[in-house]
Amino acid sequence: MDGAPHNGIDICNDDNSDQRPNSPGMEAVAHKYKVLAPPKQSTVKKIKWKLKETFFPDDPFKNFKGQPARKKFLLAVKYFFPILDWLPRYKLSMFKSDLLAGLTVASLAIPQGISYAKLANLPPIIGLYSSFIPPLVYAVLGSSRGLAVGPISIASLIMGGMLSEAVNPYADPALFLQLAFTSTLFAGVFQASLGILRLGFIIDFLSKATLVGFMAGAAVIVSLQQLKGLLGITHFPKKMGVVPVMKAVVRTTNEWSWQTILMGACFLSFLLFTRHLSIKNPKLFWISAGAPLASVIISTLFVFIFNAQDYNIQVIGKLKSGLNGPSLDRLLFDGTYLGVTMETGLVTGIIALTEGVAVGRAFASLNGYHIDGNKEMMAIGLMNIVGSCTSCYVTTGTFSRSAVNHNAGCKTPISNVVMAITVMVTLLLLMPLFAYTPNAVLAAIIISAVIGLIDIQTAYHIYKMDKVDFLVCISGFLGVIFISVQGGLGISVGLSIFRILFQITRPKIAILGNIQGTDIYRNLHQYKEAQRIPGFIILSVEAPINFANTNYLHERIRRWIEEEQTAESKVTNLQYIILDLSSVLTVDTSGIAFFMDLKKTIAKYGLQLVFVNPVGEVMEKLQRANKLHDFYGIDSLFLTISEAVISLSSFIKLSP
Amino acid sequence: MDGAPHNGIDICNDDNSDQRPNSPGMEAVAHKYKVLAPPKQSTVKKIKWKLKETFFPDDPFKNFKGQPARKKFLLAVKYFFPILDWLPRYKLSMFKSDLLAGLTVASLAIPQGISYAKLANLPPIIGLYSSFIPPLVYAVLGSSRGLAVGPISIASLIMGGMLSEAVNPYADPALFLQLAFTSTLFAGVFQASLGILRLGFIIDFLSKATLVGFMAGAAVIVSLQQLKGLLGITHFPKKMGVVPVMKAVVRTTNEWSWQTILMGACFLSFLLFTRHLSIKNPKLFWISAGAPLASVIISTLFVFIFNAQDYNIQVIGKLKSGLNGPSLDRLLFDGTYLGVTMETGLVTGIIALTEGVAVGRAFASLNGYHIDGNKEMMAIGLMNIVGSCTSCYVTTGTFSRSAVNHNAGCKTPISNVVMAITVMVTLLLLMPLFAYTPNAVLAAIIISAVIGLIDIQTAYHIYKMDKVDFLVCISGFLGVIFISVQGGLGISVGLSIFRILFQITRPKIAILGNIQGTDIYRNLHQYKEAQRIPGFIILSVEAPINFANTNYLHERIRRWIEEEQTAESKVTNLQYIILDLSSVLTVDTSGIAFFMDLKKTIAKYGLQLVFVNPVGEVMEKLQRANKLHDFYGIDSLFLTISEAVISLSSFIKLSP
Repeated sequence: MDGAPHNGIDICNDDNSDQRPNSPGMEAVAHKYKVLAPPKQSTVKKIKWKLKETFFPDDPFKNFKGQPARKKFLLAVKYFFPILDWLPRYKLSMFKSDLLAGLTVASLAIPQGISYAKLANLPPIIGLYSSFIPPLVYAVLGSSRGLAVGPISIASLIMGGMLSEAVNPYADPALFLQLAFTSTLFAGVFQASLGILRLGFIIDFLSKATLVGFMAGAAVIVSLQQLKGLLGITHFPKKMGVVPVMKAVVRTTNEWSWQTILMGACFLSFLLFTRHLSIKNPKLFWISAGAPLASVIISTLFVFIFNAQDYNIQVIGKLKSGLNGPSLDRLLFDGTYLGVTMETGLVTGIIALTEGVAVGRAFASLNGYHIDGNKEMMAIGLMNIVGSCTSCYVTTGTFSRSAVNHNAGCKTPISNVVMAITVMVTLLLLMPLFAYTPNAVLAAIIISAVIGLIDIQTAYHIYKMDKVDFLVCISGFLGVIFISVQGGLGISVGLSIFRILFQITRPKIAILGNIQGTDIYRNLHQYKEAQRIPGFIILSVEAPINFANTNYLHERIRRWIEEEQTAESKVTNLQYIILDLSSVLTVDTSGIAFFMDLKKTIAKYGLQLVFVNPVGEVMEKLQRANKLHDFYGIDSLFLTISEAVISLSSFIKLSP
Repeated sequence: MDGAPHNGIDICNDDNSDQRPNSPGMEAVAHKYKVLAPPKQSTVKKIKWKLKETFFPDDPFKNFKGQPARKKFLLAVKYFFPILDWLPRYKLSMFKSDLLAGLTVASLAIPQGISYAKLANLPPIIGLYSSFIPPLVYAVLGSSRGLAVGPISIASLIMGGMLSEAVNPYADPALFLQLAFTSTLFAGVFQASLGILRLGFIIDFLSKATLVGFMAGAAVIVSLQQLKGLLGITHFPKKMGVVPVMKAVVRTTNEWSWQTILMGACFLSFLLFTRHLSIKNPKLFWISAGAPLASVIISTLFVFIFNAQDYNIQVIGKLKSGLNGPSLDRLLFDGTYLGVTMETGLVTGIIALTEGVAVGRAFASLNGYHIDGNKEMMAIGLMNIVGSCTSCYVTTGTFSRSAVNHNAGCKTPISNVVMAITVMVTLLLLMPLFAYTPNAVLAAIIISAVIGLIDIQTAYHIYKMDKVDFLVCISGFLGVIFISVQGGLGISVGLSIFRILFQITRPKIAILGNIQGTDIYRNLHQYKEAQRIPGFIILSVEAPINFANTNYLHERIRRWIEEEQTAESKVTNLQYIILDLSSVLTVDTSGIAFFMDLKKTIAKYGLQLVFVNPVGEVMEKLQRANKLHDFYGIDSLFLTISEAVISLSSFIKLSP
């Protein structure tokens, strides 16, 4: 068989010609085109090829090919430390841009860091720590030029919420902090592993629809949490859902402080106004980038001068100065908390990764270069591992900072270094100044930051394009605000995966007809000019055939035959069922069993089954099954529908 | 637009012709065939059609159409109570066959019932109860003619194992029994709901490979459990895995009773020999069907006559006579045990359903009729609901009993009634006789029954056909014997679902070439005579395009273009990327975004993107997206690859 002319198996020379041995129309079956199996390959070669397609679809090592060993080593070092690639070519002119960008980002990063740390129920200083070490690590390891690194609101919220269920952050802040560092370590290990194992495609399961719904829900939850700061409430519920928070807000009207509300409202309006300005005119990006810092400075001065803290306006209070201490000894692998820290690390890690990689890809595409998602995951993961040992919590490339960075004209990751140094100066010298910063202003900063996550326009677009995607989106949103942040995410991802599985369980199967005067066959339902060929049912299965859908396919085809045979149009003299397998790209063992069962079922109705154009793997498996069970013959395999119809029509005329 | 000639939207008349407005080759683009969207349908109609295809692919109500209301009502009653359909036509000649079949099945059912109940850690009499009421219920509701009903080994094992984790069956047998009845109720409710909601396809997710591995593993576990009875061990571990059982067996050699071992070995050999005989010659089925009862009778007589119970041979002991009592008051919905009973009900329910429906379908197909899987699930579910209120545990259509029933020539479910009456007589009169039945014989009966579940031949066949399926199979097997029965099932099902998802994450995408002298385009890799067309990359995507694979597709296509452009063969003068969408049956919003992004990416390389043959839904969504974003024009949409190549080739010649 291996010596067959076409380097595959030639069906015409198959010895299964016993089905209609001396039929007078035999010549008509002589096929013009032959259906071939793909050229034989060793299993090892096949597996190697599959592994490459699976884990290296972007072929990141293509530059390594054919290089001498020394060059390969250099390339590898550069691959893992992209800084070695760009730093030697660094110029002073670039530094000017990077300096400006770094300072602008820092003015956003400092108030954001303090606010987000509070969102995670962590001491505010942890937020600044996390804006100091991680950007330096990323500058060395990261391959994106415009990504600015720091904590993000949603990961902060999730970490605060999940860890609070295990430990009360107010009752035992030291233990809570230990859990946060440990979760950060797990997040980093998880992220780096995904990158090293090249399993980055896992984040692809967070579809656009899921993200839009989830982000909007998280933004609502985050904003609601800020009511505590904005209204000056002291008794706030531990639970984060809409219902408990709103109940608490209504129940504690006696705690509301009008001074706090007034101040919060003023600064929130100011921040939203600057945000609006920058959206209208992107050149004014620096207004919204600088507004949070301006708000902090103005409000702090105000409190300090008027002693406003005595008038029911809550302030951050004393913060100690100094840089990040080591936190390796604070990692906690105690059995009691191992579960919750691992889970928190997993969820925050994947959320952080999704934002980091998406932002990196977006800015790379804007600037016309390309980043390797898996490499980027390793960088972010290592950054978090280092962070967990230096008193930082989960960080990633953030959208808000990167947008400012990009708009401010950054050229290289040096802008991250500038930002880190600015934060360092703040940590060393300016911390006492924050003692009088009112909580209400931090709340306003958070709200104005997360409000941009609610993307109604995209949600509307999704609604227009695809109702099921919209369902995924809206259930993510409702799940987050009514159940829990991770619950909503789970529901939304679950639904989108269920949708895919469901499509496979109920694959499309179309009846085809001939477009007159051509040899084109198309879906009768879509093309009104396509016409049925008497004597044939031509079916096109448009999905992989596997265990999940063989029962359905069998049922469905049986029903078509029965409908056909009971219809008045029995004149059609049905004789052949043609199965166009062009779109069936894989079958499993259940699929092969289905072909054999279907042939038997069809035979009971006095009909014959014909296969058209089985592709690669399907053809291989059909052949292997035929060797074992000998179930299809010379006149039941064609390369095109047209050829099958022409060849077989002669038999239909022969039998009246 | 709705008035366009072809009842769809005619791309040629589209006003998007601005892309190459006065191009000299314009005439060449005038399409011969037009890509149409499916005729417009109201959303309600679409949803209705989709629901029908989803939940009623077998169109069970087709006989109802166009009938008067009275006839419809009668048909509906007959649909729910199939007995009304066949009982009026029942003849005495049929009864002779059914009587013989029923008695033969009963001779198997009685020892099986007692043994399987012991497997579930339940009193032996529950097994007989479960062979009395459920067959009667099934006779009224079931639509399969040959199905014989009773408990099955694997569901018994799982129920015993899962409930033992919550309650010790020896320490608190009454509570254990309550949990068993409650689980049975949940199993029934779950089964009936699946049927009523027409979600029967859920059981399709247990693929052949999963079942082969899982069954074999369960058979090993069940057989190992029988070592207790066969060796006469009194201290047996609660855990069921291979390791703990083998450890216990080795550690308790002092408890082994040679008398028990001798007796067990004799009867096991006898049973395996009769099984072998019946497999060799199916006409001798009655030998293996009667062997268990014969073994019970002989061994019981032996013990009774020689007082063997005094020689270390354990016997069942006294059983009370009498029929099933009501057990409605023993159902327990206490919060402590609700979780475990629901979970047990779910797992045993789905296992029972899988065997029942598969056996029903197999025998229906053998006898040339057809059963409605969802209707059958309702019948089995109701049977278990009634069972749970009448002291029965989970039952279903069993393979072993149905095979005997079929071989013995049963004609209708009356054979189930005969079996039930025989069991009833046993319950009323013969129970005292079982007091002397040795446990070793029951163990031998179980082993000889489950050994048939190990299907090495099919496993080998799977290995030959599909290595991944074999992995699914073997991991199910190993999971069951080393982790837990439900764990192994979970791993196996999880793997098969992961495989499907994985196929979608890494869809096949083939480069096509032209088969010379024809207008056929086929995979270059599969057909060596297919040839590349200079100036084009023709890609065929063979999967739905959705959030899970858009990143991969983008990466992959980009890589191809780069390879092409850096290759020495730059003479090919690449200008067009043709995307054959014939096999893309659905896109979601991410997929549409992918098309738009890809167009932009490709434009950066100076190339143009062309779509060929988008089918139904894809075409609709492309149009909708085009209305919003206007991203493809008149010369980027063709019905066939051949047409696209012919039309566009003229442009390639124009631009050197």
